[in-house]
Amino acid sequence: MSGNSFGTLFKLTSFGESHGPAIGGIIDGCPAGLKMDVDFIQNELARRKPGQSHITTQRKEEDTFEFLSGIFEGITTGTPIAFQVRNENQKSKDYSHLKDNYRPSHADFTYDKKYGIRDYNGGGRSSARETVARVIAGGVAKLILKEHNITVEAFVKQVGKIKLDKNFDLLDLSKTESNIIRCPDDKIASEMITYIEQIKKQGDTVGGIIQCVIKNSPVGLGEPVFDKLNAALGYAMLGINAVKGFEIGSGFDCVNYKGSELNDIFTNGEKGINTQTNNSGGVQGGISNGMPIYFNVAFKPVATIMQKQKSVNNNGEEITLEAKGRHDPCVLPRAVPIVESMAALVMADMLLLSRSNKI
Amino acid sequence: MSGNSFGTLFKLTSFGESHGPAIGGIIDGCPAGLKMDVDFIQNELARRKPGQSHITTQRKEEDTFEFLSGIFEGITTGTPIAFQVRNENQKSKDYSHLKDNYRPSHADFTYDKKYGIRDYNGGGRSSARETVARVIAGGVAKLILKEHNITVEAFVKQVGKIKLDKNFDLLDLSKTESNIIRCPDDKIASEMITYIEQIKKQGDTVGGIIQCVIKNSPVGLGEPVFDKLNAALGYAMLGINAVKGFEIGSGFDCVNYKGSELNDIFTNGEKGINTQTNNSGGVQGGISNGMPIYFNVAFKPVATIMQKQKSVNNNGEEITLEAKGRHDPCVLPRAVPIVESMAALVMADMLLLSRSNKI
Amino acid sequence: MSGNSFGTLFKLTSFGESHGPAIGGIIDGCPAGLKMDVDFIQNELARRKPGQSHITTQRKEEDTFEFLSGIFEGITTGTPIAFQVRNENQKSKDYSHLKDNYRPSHADFTYDKKYGIRDYNGGGRSSARETVARVIAGGVAKLILKEHNITVEAFVKQVGKIKLDKNFDLLDLSKTESNIIRCPDDKIASEMITYIEQIKKQGDTVGGIIQCVIKNSPVGLGEPVFDKLNAALGYAMLGINAVKGFEIGSGFDCVNYKGSELNDIFTNGEKGINTQTNNSGGVQGGISNGMPIYFNVAFKPVATIMQKQKSVNNNGEEITLEAKGRHDPCVLPRAVPIVESMAALVMADMLLLSRSNKI
Amino acid sequence: MSGNSFGTLFKLTSFGESHGPAIGGIIDGCPAGLKMDVDFIQNELARRKPGQSHITTQRKEEDTFEFLSGIFEGITTGTPIAFQVRNENQKSKDYSHLKDNYRPSHADFTYDKKYGIRDYNGGGRSSARETVARVIAGGVAKLILKEHNITVEAFVKQVGKIKLDKNFDLLDLSKTESNIIRCPDDKIASEMITYIEQIKKQGDTVGGIIQCVIKNSPVGLGEPVFDKLNAALGYAMLGINAVKGFEIGSGFDCVNYKGSELNDIFTNGEKGINTQTNNSGGVQGGISNGMPIYFNVAFKPVATIMQKQKSVNNNGEEITLEAKGRHDPCVLPRAVPIVESMAALVMADMLLLSRSNKI
Repeated sequence: MSGNSFGTLFKLTSFGESHGPAIGGIIDGCPAGLKMDVDFIQNELARRKPGQSHITTQRKEEDTFEFLSGIFEGITTGTPIAFQVRNENQKSKDYSHLKDNYRPSHADFTYDKKYGIRDYNGGGRSSARETVARVIAGGVAKLILKEHNITVEAFVKQVGKIKLDKNFDLLDLSKTESNIIRCPDDKIASEMITYIEQIKKQGDTVGGIIQCVIKNSPVGLGEPVFDKLNAALGYAMLGINAVKGFEIGSGFDCVNYKGSELNDIFTNGEKGINTQTNNSGGVQGGISNGMPIYFNVAFKPVATIMQKQKSVNNNGEEITLEAKGRHDPCVLPRAVPIVESMAALVMADMLLLSRSNKI
Repeated sequence: MSGNSFGTLFKLTSFGESHGPAIGGIIDGCPAGLKMDVDFIQNELARRKPGQSHITTQRKEEDTFEFLSGIFEGITTGTPIAFQVRNENQKSKDYSHLKDNYRPSHADFTYDKKYGIRDYNGGGRSSARETVARVIAGGVAKLILKEHNITVEAFVKQVGKIKLDKNFDLLDLSKTESNIIRCPDDKIASEMITYIEQIKKQGDTVGGIIQCVIKNSPVGLGEPVFDKLNAALGYAMLGINAVKGFEIGSGFDCVNYKGSELNDIFTNGEKGINTQTNNSGGVQGGISNGMPIYFNVAFKPVATIMQKQKSVNNNGEEITLEAKGRHDPCVLPRAVPIVESMAALVMADMLLLSRSNKI
Repeated sequence: MSGNSFGTLFKLTSFGESHGPAIGGIIDGCPAGLKMDVDFIQNELARRKPGQSHITTQRKEEDTFEFLSGIFEGITTGTPIAFQVRNENQKSKDYSHLKDNYRPSHADFTYDKKYGIRDYNGGGRSSARETVARVIAGGVAKLILKEHNITVEAFVKQVGKIKLDKNFDLLDLSKTESNIIRCPDDKIASEMITYIEQIKKQGDTVGGIIQCVIKNSPVGLGEPVFDKLNAALGYAMLGINAVKGFEIGSGFDCVNYKGSELNDIFTNGEKGINTQTNNSGGVQGGISNGMPIYFNVAFKPVATIMQKQKSVNNNGEEITLEAKGRHDPCVLPRAVPIVESMAALVMADMLLLSRSNKI
Repeated sequence: MSGNSFGTLFKLTSFGESHGPAIGGIIDGCPAGLKMDVDFIQNELARRKPGQSHITTQRKEEDTFEFLSGIFEGITTGTPIAFQVRNENQKSKDYSHLKDNYRPSHADFTYDKKYGIRDYNGGGRSSARETVARVIAGGVAKLILKEHNITVEAFVKQVGKIKLDKNFDLLDLSKTESNIIRCPDDKIASEMITYIEQIKKQGDTVGGIIQCVIKNSPVGLGEPVFDKLNAALGYAMLGINAVKGFEIGSGFDCVNYKGSELNDIFTNGEKGINTQTNNSGGVQGGISNGMPIYFNVAFKPVATIMQKQKSVNNNGEEITLEAKGRHDPCVLPRAVPIVESMAALVMADMLLLSRSNKI
């Protein structure tokens, strides 16, 4: 662990503050010979960007990214791939009212105490704007996975108490992008959107659950004992802003069943050995077993609400805060590509690591 | 990530198979000058060992450990601390019936495919016996934390559907060790024990939830953005055998509340700035805020059941398996010290890392 | 090791090709609270830049750098410090004649075979232009060392056979910058310059030795057994382009003395315990002992010469190459700040690591 | 860097003090499927062990090692390989006279200051006895390299001023083991032995140079820019006790030649593209080019001499020391397998890393 780097062989190091000059990163360890698809990655960024619909923040940021190295005539060369997105409106807004104040459930207080200084403009490094770097690097990872036919697809499974209560294999995940909440069931999607509109009117916020499904993983990814595939995925997800929980396969629901009910029975099918059920979530003993890998990620409601809140300032004096600007009533739709990106980073890294398993 | 090492500055590398010559590890980075308390660590092992009560496996293993280096006249010297537990009965049992067979929801199949070879005696490296190394290293980490007055206490919160539904600060955690299930509420503990006895009679197994509470953490631990304290804790827990879920603070329940309900309001009390509620679970922006850190860990039922199960062998042929030997109907009581140990490893590492935060 | 990252707690990850869009890097782990001195770092770059005198390459590159993150109101915040230098004339020259050809003693052949593709423009990643990133990061490291009164000073000790044969403590190192070869003895400097002028007229190149001296190091830096201070310094130096040798203290000359002649006798002086001689080079058992640390670094002659050379192309066909453009007849003067920078990176990292030595 | 671990994918973590219970280590990342040759490794230890001839220390240590994990029915399983050598006579000698005293050019003073405590028995962790772990792990690495036909051979090139002044390709390296000094030229070997006998009689010590030659390396090993193959090798060698210098290929001698004289001209021979000369030492741009890799390592005279020496104790008081026991007058013959082992660790790691170079 080292804070701003992620991965062992396919390694992202990210940088940037919300209102600093730029956000970006370096990918060290991308294999040579990969055809870079800039449009694909720019489109991944579009899935994350603010202002994409009326239920996300209305801030306009174009988030055009640039590769600075590691690619020659459209092909990766094996050298570090640096990239950046310039922050367009980095001085457009006055954040001086936050200079001395600690917003509830934000990182203001903890950064201040940890470092003795903090960039209070738009949250600085603790802003979810930092995930721009993850989505770009995740896009590159997805291109690697595509070469191996591995897909990573996330969708919004729950917003508040509105829940898409179906197993993913009964869903058409290609429909996820067909609505602004990124839920592959149109009816539930519509309910979610209506609910978020309500919440927004109240000046409040709401959280939810994203499910991510990884298909066509080869058997053998994951590095026991500490770097089990599930541990690496959980670590990746819990490093995303606002995430409070992670579960894989049967997850927390596993407590409601006996071993005899939950065990996944092996069988020999057309594609070789697989399991009749998949309560393991595609991972056994920390290693992928070839079945779909699926997991849930819980996001808390956005901490910034459009209501007055009590707090204290850095002198310990009581204050009343009122949010300014345009904020997300619900981050879920924009978090879908972030979840996919972090999962893709894990899978690409594990794929490379697995090349050393055998002599 | 590198598989068998955990941590950056306070780093454990573990080794050993269930029925190999020994289980052990090396702690690299333990600061010099720590008084070693061998009895304390031996007692931690006793909390983990099999045969400790009638609701755990009846295998008898003494698990006496030995330090091999890094300690001089009872004090750590700053050099690597190696330790080992000899496996006593390493050849006492015949596992040849497992040689070619894949047990459901075990790691037999995935290890075989990943490495092309597996030690099938008692699960080899995938056996939970490997956690012996974690408990010893976690014990050393706890001694470091004690120097800073930080406590790490876990307990069984749920077994099957039997749940201790109280906030931890309403519980007397010193009572956790007073019963064999390690639940600090005697009445619920008693129900849990009765339930496990039933399950055991059925030849079945059951899972549950362990909650862990860390008190007196200084403000400022955790290394954003990827190594947030919550991410590091989640990664640690999800690397434990049989864990399917992790949640911190409000966890998955956060979806049931609005931002205005869930935000933790800062206030200035006798001990300085803290929060009125603690839905954040002691971590904001990935950094400890001085409030108690608490999280839940979901364990699935043990995969080995005393019932016939269908499966396949390594030729893809259908087989019927029947477990032999003595197994845990529920791992929860023995997993309590393991959860604490992994949490202590994270906290000790983060404590050392935080020494470099400021110039 | 991971190729493009250097350091554990104070960690540089660098990126960039000679003729790509930019050269730069990310420093992860710079402590918060450091006053950034941009002018100082820009001046360090000036010491490295081409065209600084008639004995270096006549290419003109301004090498203006920009910080992209991690600094707020002139102070480091503890978050990653990204920086870049835009490559000004990235398309000014035609390198297509190198596309298929392997220059002798360059990295063309090995990059091509390792990665299956190479950016042949100006050497791509293997160009010494990459060291721009090291000098910027090294400048930040020097600022940290300044806070602890630690100095890092390198100078040219030998060019070809012309040698400054004096112990560093008999030299006035403040004179190093007073001449274009960066040798603190004016007479020897003058001889070196004349020799390089000759070599340049011949279209040939020459190497030499740089000595680096680190003063005021605290006792206790270096992490045995593999990360001894001398090993870390050697690793840093041998990663610089064209370096063929490293020696510390008595170095290779140690073979000419007996133990009784070479041992450094301890004595107790005004400043506490120190040694009468310093054949150890300030490091004993891999750990700094408070005496000056000094080491030599051997640079081979620049591989690009202004003479015809035979070689082969990527089809294995014999060719004759003739260098174009403007190249250094001797890299030594420009390598002085690079050596200092790499040494400063090591010392800053070891300083932070040493904070965890004691409980 | 983390002190007691070496390597990225093939990683050794070592432990142990000279007079503690045991010396050993864990290899994490050894690929599965390697046939383990215990006799070969035991023989490597025999090449390192004390008492092997009259010109080494007369201490008798059998150094019998044991594997504790990671091997099943003689084959590696991909899980960590732990090993140990019990220290036989750990309490046989009284070192209490060293408790408060700092031996010249030893690590006593620096360990004491760094950690505030030191194990003074036989040097504790700073003893060269620690290299037992390196030789065992290096033996495993050599077995991997054998699978790829790569050989690693070191020999004594110089003792004091007695030098074997021939290029390695004019030597029969299979003769290295034919004499007790490990020099493949019998006449020079004989002179070296006579000289060491003299030095021993004087109660003095002497150093020298070991050359190491690696043949049949594939093209493409080494990870630029910081982890160049030469940097990794230098880092490995400079971490060995008593090493003061490292040079590869033309080394420090490169200063005596012009670029036109030193460049290695490519040619196309029977085995494909190679170079006419090999001043590069088999590495170009930090990457192996398929030519033999060769480098020199300078060892200073052993610090412990059989003569009275002045020093100070930990109160800063002047003392006179006199060595007891049996020590090496010259470590070179015993250092040959250590040099080979560290080189083998580097090569095995780089071999695994290179598997991720291409998509």
